[in-house]
Amino acid sequence: MLKKFIFLFSVLFFVVCLDCWEKRKKAFLVRLSRDRCIGYFDEEMYGLVSIINSHPLMYTTSCCSGRISMLEVKNPWTKLNARVIGKWHKKTEKEEVLEKISLYEGKKEPNLWIIVQPPIIHVSCKNLETASKLVVYARNSGFKESGIFFANSKRVMVEIRSSEKTSIPLVLNGKKMLNEQNFNELIEYLNNLLENLKLKIERLEKNFSNLQN
Amino acid sequence: MLKKFIFLFSVLFFVVCLDCWEKRKKAFLVRLSRDRCIGYFDEEMYGLVSIINSHPLMYTTSCCSGRISMLEVKNPWTKLNARVIGKWHKKTEKEEVLEKISLYEGKKEPNLWIIVQPPIIHVSCKNLETASKLVVYARNSGFKESGIFFANSKRVMVEIRSSEKTSIPLVLNGKKMLNEQNFNELIEYLNNLLENLKLKIERLEKNFSNLQN
Repeated sequence: MLKKFIFLFSVLFFVVCLDCWEKRKKAFLVRLSRDRCIGYFDEEMYGLVSIINSHPLMYTTSCCSGRISMLEVKNPWTKLNARVIGKWHKKTEKEEVLEKISLYEGKKEPNLWIIVQPPIIHVSCKNLETASKLVVYARNSGFKESGIFFANSKRVMVEIRSSEKTSIPLVLNGKKMLNEQNFNELIEYLNNLLENLKLKIERLEKNFSNLQN
Repeated sequence: MLKKFIFLFSVLFFVVCLDCWEKRKKAFLVRLSRDRCIGYFDEEMYGLVSIINSHPLMYTTSCCSGRISMLEVKNPWTKLNARVIGKWHKKTEKEEVLEKISLYEGKKEPNLWIIVQPPIIHVSCKNLETASKLVVYARNSGFKESGIFFANSKRVMVEIRSSEKTSIPLVLNGKKMLNEQNFNELIEYLNNLLENLKLKIERLEKNFSNLQN
């Protein structure tokens, strides 16, 4: 009798869990469609996100294809009191950056930073095996900082991320850090970096198309 | 007969696996003692590493308490053809950095970077539950980029890492990027950052001492 009860309870538990994850996947796919409609989705990620979502044991929960941004903040890794004062998904312009720097010169606080944020994707996987495989694929495709950041019996969350994050101080304690004479060089470097990150997304997309179900 | 065989095989498999992980832990602890004797171990990590290793289901495989370094390399996230030309575990000095910059001015290749590398620890866990708990503890202690980067039936590998990594270009394509007039400000910022990272290790050590076996 007890054995029967345990068996039935296990089956019921399994079905409920299965249902939960599937339901969450469906809800996220609906949200993704809605976000696309209202222009709230990063279109450069659509190919990659579609491939991941076509896998029956995975779905994406958030993503960003990478960008250059200017942040008004003491330290760029803390979001507390940070203010984005410029954001570029393609190229940034020297004049625009210089103009913003001039507004911060002489101001003791906050500091001013220019940052390149590499692509990032969060994926919910149904089990550890799928998540581990995804991490290995991502790392082998050059997304070296990928890993599982949360795991329980209901889901395993993977962060796919590459290591090109670059944070450069423009103004620290009101003092200009950069040599404006050679500013062209820096802007060119940052724009090239962002362009290469977009190519890296395409390579990841190609590699992921081999992910077996 | 078949059932008996499967049962015996499972028990044997389990014992062998157990033995393997325990053996690896022992070997790593021996290596750690040897590394300490020959001064090959980062002493600032000893307290934290000892706490992790005292847990029966974890052991550390490598660690670094963080440092400031100067790298001769095109991009600081690729190790290919990178050459470390300066490394400081405590404070760096303005004059030393300026002297090295002058050697690279006018050289088309390679670029020159100054980098703050935050603390990093790799931990082998015996199972997913232990690894997940470790990741949650590390993230809640401010090591926000921690995660599981490898998992199979034999071990689950965790990387504990914080997000303060800072890479600043000093010379790009032979051109000096920084305003030397305000160089004191930058050096002070980097030295303070490194000091704060060491305090962060101490906080992690305190939080980890609550990790239940």
